[in-house]
Amino acid sequence: MKLITAGILVIGDEILSGRTYDTNSNFIAKNLIKNGIKLEEIKIIQDKLTIIEKSVLNFSNKYNYVFTTGGIGPTHDDITSESVASAFKKKLEVNNEAYKILEKYYPKGQFNKSRQKMTIMPEGAELIYNPVTVAPGFKIKNVFVLPGVPKIMEKMFLEILNNIQKGKPKLITTINTDLYESKIASFLNDIQKKYKDCSIGSYPYFNFVSKIGGVNIVISSWNMNSLKPVEKDIIEMIQLNSGKSLVV
Amino acid sequence: MKLITAGILVIGDEILSGRTYDTNSNFIAKNLIKNGIKLEEIKIIQDKLTIIEKSVLNFSNKYNYVFTTGGIGPTHDDITSESVASAFKKKLEVNNEAYKILEKYYPKGQFNKSRQKMTIMPEGAELIYNPVTVAPGFKIKNVFVLPGVPKIMEKMFLEILNNIQKGKPKLITTINTDLYESKIASFLNDIQKKYKDCSIGSYPYFNFVSKIGGVNIVISSWNMNSLKPVEKDIIEMIQLNSGKSLVV
Repeated sequence: MKLITAGILVIGDEILSGRTYDTNSNFIAKNLIKNGIKLEEIKIIQDKLTIIEKSVLNFSNKYNYVFTTGGIGPTHDDITSESVASAFKKKLEVNNEAYKILEKYYPKGQFNKSRQKMTIMPEGAELIYNPVTVAPGFKIKNVFVLPGVPKIMEKMFLEILNNIQKGKPKLITTINTDLYESKIASFLNDIQKKYKDCSIGSYPYFNFVSKIGGVNIVISSWNMNSLKPVEKDIIEMIQLNSGKSLVV
Repeated sequence: MKLITAGILVIGDEILSGRTYDTNSNFIAKNLIKNGIKLEEIKIIQDKLTIIEKSVLNFSNKYNYVFTTGGIGPTHDDITSESVASAFKKKLEVNNEAYKILEKYYPKGQFNKSRQKMTIMPEGAELIYNPVTVAPGFKIKNVFVLPGVPKIMEKMFLEILNNIQKGKPKLITTINTDLYESKIASFLNDIQKKYKDCSIGSYPYFNFVSKIGGVNIVISSWNMNSLKPVEKDIIEMIQLNSGKSLVV
């Protein structure tokens, strides 16, 4: 089975400076996996034309879908549209449909030059509608260009999801145990070797206040039909090691 | 002035699946900028040897410092150490110092094979001590290899910061205004053109409940000695447009 893959490009100095927390990529990630699309990479990059250009091109070649967030507003530091145009060697021009949408939206006399900037897109861009603040994003080739403001981005992204090819959702089961990770590590390794079509992740946690710790074991697979046999083996292994197990 | 640069490699399928929220890169980002180190890129990648290897090498060549998080625990899915060794064509071997630390830490008979795995590092690795759960990270060339658990990673990272070359902290001033972004966009652009040694970022926000919105204007510079003149121009511009301004 050929997987449908995706990459996310988060564009913004404000994330790299630590000023802003990127919540967008986690939102997109969760929704992609539920819809059978495998997110393979997230890259957070500076507001620099040459860097955006190169990253867009590289991701567009590597993944089925690329989602960019940030840099499509009205100010001088919003340079995603021109960078994407440049990446694909497309002319940058006023998108007539976007122009009409915004012209209609703003009170007469308030559709100023900065607002008009938001209608300038690569030639041939298809609009992604914005039900929140109207200014649209766009799609060109396999690249979906979205704004950075989470409330707006989320609505637009969910709309995109309705309209793209999806795959078989990844099967995922999480087993929690109170055993230490290093106690079960070698057994988990054996079980992983037995079931090569799934991946078994091991995520320890420890609460420094309650002093309670344990491991979440995550079994996941894009192509198995059931994870039950793996789940059974892991639960038996935990019991043999006198641990508690809970499928969560 | 030559800037000191950095990149972060977040290694982990659990971030790409949306299961885990990456808080580590924001923590590192905030601390780097305060210490005069410019974070230029964050990349979140899969637990795959060839991908980790390639990314480590690429970041090591591009940036002064590279910080990796995740994948140095005792389980089979922890493959960062072998990937980093492979990137630098170093032998993978038991680090004697790490071995002694862990052997001393665990009760007799409990220093099992999985725990011993955490002492296997690239030849020539320097240890990064772990004051929380003892198992150390390591440094090789300009790459600092850290665990993924935030409470542990944070302590170890702050320790590293004490011991690496830092630069002049970036000057940053934030001015908040109640004006709409598109109202001030062209004026901000003019001010940006006047002061080429700083970067002026514009971050609009809107609360959909209170219906209150505005813009945070962030002036920042790695090489100016003061941002006061820029700040003054922006505040005057806001006043001319009948807006309120507040340096926050």
